[in-house]
Amino acid sequence: MRATCILLCFLTFLVASSAHPGKKKQYKPCKELVLYFHDIIYNGQNAANATSAIVAAPEGANLTILASQFHFGNIAVFDDPITLDNNLHSPPVGRAQGMYIYDTKNTFTAWLGFSFVLNSTDHHGTINFIGADPTLVKTRDISVVGGTGDFFMHRGIATIATDAFEDDVYFRLRVDIKFYECW
Amino acid sequence: MRATCILLCFLTFLVASSAHPGKKKQYKPCKELVLYFHDIIYNGQNAANATSAIVAAPEGANLTILASQFHFGNIAVFDDPITLDNNLHSPPVGRAQGMYIYDTKNTFTAWLGFSFVLNSTDHHGTINFIGADPTLVKTRDISVVGGTGDFFMHRGIATIATDAFEDDVYFRLRVDIKFYECW
Amino acid sequence: MRATCILLCFLTFLVASSAHPGKKKQYKPCKELVLYFHDIIYNGQNAANATSAIVAAPEGANLTILASQFHFGNIAVFDDPITLDNNLHSPPVGRAQGMYIYDTKNTFTAWLGFSFVLNSTDHHGTINFIGADPTLVKTRDISVVGGTGDFFMHRGIATIATDAFEDDVYFRLRVDIKFYECW
Repeated sequence: MRATCILLCFLTFLVASSAHPGKKKQYKPCKELVLYFHDIIYNGQNAANATSAIVAAPEGANLTILASQFHFGNIAVFDDPITLDNNLHSPPVGRAQGMYIYDTKNTFTAWLGFSFVLNSTDHHGTINFIGADPTLVKTRDISVVGGTGDFFMHRGIATIATDAFEDDVYFRLRVDIKFYECW
Repeated sequence: MRATCILLCFLTFLVASSAHPGKKKQYKPCKELVLYFHDIIYNGQNAANATSAIVAAPEGANLTILASQFHFGNIAVFDDPITLDNNLHSPPVGRAQGMYIYDTKNTFTAWLGFSFVLNSTDHHGTINFIGADPTLVKTRDISVVGGTGDFFMHRGIATIATDAFEDDVYFRLRVDIKFYECW
Repeated sequence: MRATCILLCFLTFLVASSAHPGKKKQYKPCKELVLYFHDIIYNGQNAANATSAIVAAPEGANLTILASQFHFGNIAVFDDPITLDNNLHSPPVGRAQGMYIYDTKNTFTAWLGFSFVLNSTDHHGTINFIGADPTLVKTRDISVVGGTGDFFMHRGIATIATDAFEDDVYFRLRVDIKFYECW
């Protein structure tokens, strides 16, 4: 029994230690998901297909053309299909819903606030994201700040990459979601 | 003393175990609050009573009528009274402040980013929320991503239900906040 | 060995206890940062210097003058320099990017959603914030809901103070970021 106690002491000590880790440690995700979402911006002529629309713009800009100066000041609202692969026409497993805000005058950066609403045989629940997106950088990390359903109370990091884009109308993002708190 | 140690070993083992729980466990909240908030949307004629206003809209829409296509693209800013019961005229215990974004073209869904600013004899502090709100669903879960004051560092899930609505002007939400991280 | 075990029992018991603390305890941050950021609002005449712009406004307002009624309904998008001291002309260590929303009709309050994008010799990574900002109060607490890079998975509280302001064009915020979850 004493041996067991010593072992438990040791194990609990390890667990307790890992709860206060040092800097720059390499953590292993408790869950990982890779998904794609597809954004088609309304440009005045594609109302049937568009999945997002510019709804705010700085003085002098309008709502069918992204603003000059790297779109600074545009807010777009979106409801984009999520797919398991990079094909826009694959069966969607959910919707990416929220907004992005172009927030720089001298390069392309956006601020993102959105949710993945997943409803497939594999996943049922929502994942909530916010963060800064310097869109010209190859991969960008944002925060997964919470979740519901299968993702109850989860936290983690989402790494975003622009997988494809066409003019100012279509872009596709690859999102690699690594959860580090899974409950 | 050894017995105490064994007991402590066992207890700490239990605590350590519960920090890495399996999927779909039923968690018990460490704190719970049920509150109501009341939103009166400005429609061009109710300036004195309105607690929210449409401030962004897609091309062709205006700021006194919610947009067609399920209000897609409207952003509303609000400062709504919070009450303990479902009566708009009860003494407010705080304000719900932030925005909602209608983000779907073929049904009613919104994306929420807001805070509860509570200032009553019972509660002093703020609670911060984000998440997807499919408004036609009976109850919807969003994330409680942080808090301050009495809700310092709290996290949890808020379950939202539409308790009442009148035309496109008034709606009342019941919010059942369950905290699972309380500090 | 038994003594060690008893000691470990005791230590782990302490750690386990501190994971379920009572109310109103005084926590010690695991990391702290004090930074300043500088916001110059576009007013129609300062395009070269402005770091933020009003992009949404209620009915009857425009995008170069903050709205009447305590700016209720204005959304501003910003990309502000961050400095280590209170001098606008100090070398920036990063950018504060996101939005603020004026959300009250009878006093000045804002709702904030933004990120610090830090890129200096000392810090490389992002910090994500949301929360309510009653701007006339001397210090206001908002939530640090996540981070990336050096701030991987961090959470905490940011205390904001208005350090200076000039008319409706320039304001400077002092942000005292206390992290309580550091990873």
